Amino acid sequence: MAEYREEDGSLHGKAPLAPDLRIVLVETSHPGNIGSAARAMKVMGLERLVLVRPHRFPDAQATALASGAEDLLERAEVYDDLAAALADCRRVYGTTARDRHIAWPQLTARPAAAEIVALGASAPVAILFGNERVGLSNRELDLCQCLIQIPTAEAYRSLNLAQAVQILAYELLLAQRETRHPAPSVLETAAPRAAMEGFYGHLAQVLRQAGFLQAPRETHMMRRLRRLFDRARPDLNEVYILRGILTEVERWAQMDKGDGHRL
Amino acid sequence: MAEYREEDGSLHGKAPLAPDLRIVLVETSHPGNIGSAARAMKVMGLERLVLVRPHRFPDAQATALASGAEDLLERAEVYDDLAAALADCRRVYGTTARDRHIAWPQLTARPAAAEIVALGASAPVAILFGNERVGLSNRELDLCQCLIQIPTAEAYRSLNLAQAVQILAYELLLAQRETRHPAPSVLETAAPRAAMEGFYGHLAQVLRQAGFLQAPRETHMMRRLRRLFDRARPDLNEVYILRGILTEVERWAQMDKGDGHRL
Repeated sequence: MAEYREEDGSLHGKAPLAPDLRIVLVETSHPGNIGSAARAMKVMGLERLVLVRPHRFPDAQATALASGAEDLLERAEVYDDLAAALADCRRVYGTTARDRHIAWPQLTARPAAAEIVALGASAPVAILFGNERVGLSNRELDLCQCLIQIPTAEAYRSLNLAQAVQILAYELLLAQRETRHPAPSVLETAAPRAAMEGFYGHLAQVLRQAGFLQAPRETHMMRRLRRLFDRARPDLNEVYILRGILTEVERWAQMDKGDGHRL
Repeated sequence: MAEYREEDGSLHGKAPLAPDLRIVLVETSHPGNIGSAARAMKVMGLERLVLVRPHRFPDAQATALASGAEDLLERAEVYDDLAAALADCRRVYGTTARDRHIAWPQLTARPAAAEIVALGASAPVAILFGNERVGLSNRELDLCQCLIQIPTAEAYRSLNLAQAVQILAYELLLAQRETRHPAPSVLETAAPRAAMEGFYGHLAQVLRQAGFLQAPRETHMMRRLRRLFDRARPDLNEVYILRGILTEVERWAQMDKGDGHRL
């Protein structure tokens, strides 16, 4: 409730922050953190809160800690499935800590905020925050195209969930105020994530049939392929082309089988 | 508890953040905010917590929310008097929001952090955070040499106390990492705040006797004078000189009285 206010509004402070930026809290355990995160968002001008499998929501503790940001809780979108929550997003960022075998593109909070603002307000973007204890799982990270790290001291890195949201929201506000003339979004043509997931599912199925994907390397290999195709940022037409290729390969393989290994 | 970790330690990340920077929470109402502030500090490498007239401390809720930063609570210094808490500080920053009739030097969080890091680690510096509901009073702000504002959205400026501490601590960590070779502190020669307060008390007393200070303008005038002398950053010898002048003026005036308005 402390009123650490900024001086009266400067001109560039009045532009709305990317209206289609969503903060996505995944499997949040403590409802108080949901309320504190909503307040942290609103105080920096972020409006859109998405909850995936919250352990308790709605909840009196969330409402109490929202403290003026109850409207964000009321408008919060709640999903059972993370991929469904991200279906229309063009780019997904995951906040995480753990080392991974495959290097995701990674940014710290400040350059990440600058990149997000540079992407423009017209393309839906999501930032994921994992469960308080375990963070984002590998399967959840598979849905991200970039990781965001928030710098901390080395001796003690236990940043609270709502504090992590606060720092990113703060960096986003400042990045927006520094950007007077945002460039046209490079994401406007990027295919929605649901189309990309459909493609990856199809790709995995074909590669499995072809014997290219085999346990235990299947998961690892699919992650490499995701990174590769995500870097290319295909548009929807290109996704249709890729899926067309997969369909043709399947038909050809089936036909081949029917004819009894013609080659 | 979420583990938003930074990548492995880079070289410049290992330098300790200004070890004599104190976060001073004044008349905090909610013990949970004290615990959350301690955690927010520790995760960014700040160690020294000072509490002035906390409403409840120690408290189980503070300990619960510290979540790994209990050591900061155990080592927290508790004072009844703000001036006593700041006695040996060389520079004091106040976080606030309200407009003031006298313009204090003001910085937003990022340049403030850069300035504090540039001051060097050897000079004790304090950052004050006021009560959750009312912020810092005018009398508390009188003890500050600079105000810090944390940017917020215009529509909703209600930043939580621990979140305000988190943002400043984060900016301090980043400012320190950007500063490889900090300049020698310009504050090393600045007189401790207790000496300055002694001077201001003496000055007010003399000016009141002289009829220069009169209610209701007295408070306003003393603030102007504080701003003036604080800008000069006098060292201890200069403070002794100033007090010597005051003492001489008093003696002279008394002598004058004894002689019955000689002039």
